[in-house]
Amino acid sequence: MNGAEALVRTLVNSGVTTCFANPGTSEMHFVSALDRVPGMRCVLGLAETVVTGCADGYGRMMGRPAATLLHCGPGLANGLANLHNAKRAYTPVVNIVGDHATYHVAYDTPLTSDVESLARPMSQWVRLSRHARSVADDAALAVQAARTSPGGVATLILPADTAWTESGGPQQAHAVQPRRQASSQHIDQAARALRAKSADGATMILLGTGGLTEASQMAAWRIARATGAALRTTTFVARMPRGHGRPPIDRMPYAVDQALTMLAPVRTLILAGAPTPAAFFAYPDKPSELCAPGTTVIPMAGVDEDAEAALIALAEALRAPRQVDFALPAPEAGMPFGAFTPAAFGQVLARILPQDCIVMEDAVTSGRGLFTPTFQAAAHDWLQNTGGAIGGGIPTATGAAIACPDRPVICLQADGAGMYSLQGLWTQARERLNVVTIVFANRAYAILQGELRAVGAVPGPASDALFSLNDPALDWVRLAQGMGVPAERTDTMEGLADALSRALHAQGPYLIELLC
Amino acid sequence: MNGAEALVRTLVNSGVTTCFANPGTSEMHFVSALDRVPGMRCVLGLAETVVTGCADGYGRMMGRPAATLLHCGPGLANGLANLHNAKRAYTPVVNIVGDHATYHVAYDTPLTSDVESLARPMSQWVRLSRHARSVADDAALAVQAARTSPGGVATLILPADTAWTESGGPQQAHAVQPRRQASSQHIDQAARALRAKSADGATMILLGTGGLTEASQMAAWRIARATGAALRTTTFVARMPRGHGRPPIDRMPYAVDQALTMLAPVRTLILAGAPTPAAFFAYPDKPSELCAPGTTVIPMAGVDEDAEAALIALAEALRAPRQVDFALPAPEAGMPFGAFTPAAFGQVLARILPQDCIVMEDAVTSGRGLFTPTFQAAAHDWLQNTGGAIGGGIPTATGAAIACPDRPVICLQADGAGMYSLQGLWTQARERLNVVTIVFANRAYAILQGELRAVGAVPGPASDALFSLNDPALDWVRLAQGMGVPAERTDTMEGLADALSRALHAQGPYLIELLC
Repeated sequence: MNGAEALVRTLVNSGVTTCFANPGTSEMHFVSALDRVPGMRCVLGLAETVVTGCADGYGRMMGRPAATLLHCGPGLANGLANLHNAKRAYTPVVNIVGDHATYHVAYDTPLTSDVESLARPMSQWVRLSRHARSVADDAALAVQAARTSPGGVATLILPADTAWTESGGPQQAHAVQPRRQASSQHIDQAARALRAKSADGATMILLGTGGLTEASQMAAWRIARATGAALRTTTFVARMPRGHGRPPIDRMPYAVDQALTMLAPVRTLILAGAPTPAAFFAYPDKPSELCAPGTTVIPMAGVDEDAEAALIALAEALRAPRQVDFALPAPEAGMPFGAFTPAAFGQVLARILPQDCIVMEDAVTSGRGLFTPTFQAAAHDWLQNTGGAIGGGIPTATGAAIACPDRPVICLQADGAGMYSLQGLWTQARERLNVVTIVFANRAYAILQGELRAVGAVPGPASDALFSLNDPALDWVRLAQGMGVPAERTDTMEGLADALSRALHAQGPYLIELLC
Repeated sequence: MNGAEALVRTLVNSGVTTCFANPGTSEMHFVSALDRVPGMRCVLGLAETVVTGCADGYGRMMGRPAATLLHCGPGLANGLANLHNAKRAYTPVVNIVGDHATYHVAYDTPLTSDVESLARPMSQWVRLSRHARSVADDAALAVQAARTSPGGVATLILPADTAWTESGGPQQAHAVQPRRQASSQHIDQAARALRAKSADGATMILLGTGGLTEASQMAAWRIARATGAALRTTTFVARMPRGHGRPPIDRMPYAVDQALTMLAPVRTLILAGAPTPAAFFAYPDKPSELCAPGTTVIPMAGVDEDAEAALIALAEALRAPRQVDFALPAPEAGMPFGAFTPAAFGQVLARILPQDCIVMEDAVTSGRGLFTPTFQAAAHDWLQNTGGAIGGGIPTATGAAIACPDRPVICLQADGAGMYSLQGLWTQARERLNVVTIVFANRAYAILQGELRAVGAVPGPASDALFSLNDPALDWVRLAQGMGVPAERTDTMEGLADALSRALHAQGPYLIELLC
């Protein structure tokens, strides 16, 4: 058995049963091995950013990794942005990069590059396997590394000769340690702070990775109701169960001034799987740290710790009542109509989201106000771009649909961001995935128009030329059709509601270009 | 004057007058500075691989660098594949990457990454500027580094606070050393080998970077005619003047077996700006080194040396006659018709290429046989993908058109490769560039079907699924129209000839999908 077959058998033994791929010559034996080993589904992406974004979406929904298959340094490079998002989401991904045969690197042929240097910044774990005999061991270690709490990107670099040389056979799965428990001292410290019955809003619990499960949210909500503490999630969530039956928890604002205002009255901040809040970017004369000076920060559960167990323990320590209600206002009557506004869009979404759907949101400026209006939507999972590398939407939605074929997927995609990875629409068509993509066509890098002002710079011809996408206007209907995805365009909320209804009843993917 | 303005003024002072950009928040002050400093043209790319590919095409045609403007680690990552191609082409590029403010990095916010680690593998020179006061100096050094023979990618990483902090003003251009002269000993050694009057083909001159100028080719041709030496270029050329009035020099084959056969009779190989020939990839039981054992390799001019001067000196040393003819056979009569074959396509191209046009070829399997049939085309420059990172075609053609607005550009683009960077079509439409893209729609990763066999692996369902692009078929006409580029489809050579004629007469970009 050659190294390639030992690799694929080890992956399957380890529960890795889906491979998103964009292979090249150095991966040919791996491709061939996929034919000899049952149990591995292969999905082709036409650009590597699609491949890695798919692996991110798949891993977020499955809680276990898919493999990728990428070609040499440039192929890896093309996939790094969505690996960055996956790393920041703590998504388990086994990122396999084929490279030149070990003995061929010395010739410095055109595709030669330092793959390890490229991989390290976007990986939690990197290994270059130098022998066919070590490939199976390294693959088992890679799966283990990807699954080790809090999860992450494990990059395994495989020279071509490790694939075609005789190996020692496959490896069995390595055991994965459960999440570490949070320190009981920190839980006690949080309990003491909350018992002090500070005024509403003076204590806040911030939920992040691991603190966003349904059970985590319920425990957090019990605590908040019992103590008056404020509750927020991080600005961007990797995956959050939301909607009917889940607590109405909003997120930390993206805009620095709004976040500073929100955190100004907070004297004690309890972190449950979240980092200490910091501005997404630095701005002249504004702080990077968002907490008011003197705020006590209690790191109750780190990202690699069991935030869910910590929140439940905290709720019990506080004897918070188990029965809670969410006390939501009655939803707005009637379907909104007329032009796009974020609030109106949120209302349409709240009414139309199907039960158990998955929402992938990479809507940038158009997506900022969507949490509040969708508290009363049907139960769903909400995924966001966690690493700031825009363009994760279409690929991540695609991977989520591969993971969950019975759940409709709605992708909320900003137009500028969508252009980084539109190739993912083709994979949706090829795999007949039930993904509805809504493109917010404001025909601008609207976020940059705001950011220019935020940094104190002045708009002018250069910024106008670099931030506008309206000359020529992108025609997303044709772009989607060009990749085999049916599409239509609308510029009203009532048109959107109709189009969404058609899209959700159609088999396979669908795209709606919403003029904003 | 802040650091951003000092940067832009220094670039303009140094002859960098075009900036291909896909900026983000950390680059806002640089964008603003572009408005205050006259003399810099800004061109937007909707994906970073477009931005860097444009800079490659521009630099190849101008012989001096454009700047890029990229956003943080993921933005750089998205552009690395075409920077890799530029590095391998020795194209001068000043690659500017904005990053978080120096003091903000410690907060490890979502977009934080190790930009230097990402940049090093695809750059000849990397510097992180830490102070506004050093930005101008570093920018002048970056331009110098990009222009230092043989040319290359100089990456300058600029934290956001270096842009908005007060600087010491701009820098003047740094002097650039001329190319080093090749060693006269090596030239003498080559002359002795050639005077030995070995049988035709037993001595070969291999032309690469620097040895591909028109003067280099003419000198090489004189030598070949006087001595019977064989002449070849490297398999991939960054830029080669070809066609009417230029010598008919073919390139080294890509396929290993063909290259081995060609080099088998060669006893002496003289390198003029080319590396020792090595296989593009390693294959089981085939050598990486392509020269027959015992071949004497004379490294007459290295890639950073003046191969043109060395070839002229060698021709003079050999007293090779200055008057040479090219003795080409009469061109085939009549325009080919019927289905696509590489030979027929080459004939169409030979007849239709306009005088002084630029051909960018990223045609992969469809492009292998095009040199011979186009020896008699009108004079043109031929550019190829030099780094093996497919998808360079559309962006590089776009950058070449920005550099040479008066020269028609023909982009020969394989369909699979084209999907990596189709976003470049939008920039062609926005800038009204005279680029005609011919997409070879074989609806497959045809090269991989061949490579699978070449490595001794066996086709099967996985390879079929990963190498075929026909389910669904890509519709390049709609894809182009979706980005504002007029397009049509043909499946015959006569249809291609008609379409090309329309395309070349149209103002602005045009795309022809050629079913293969």
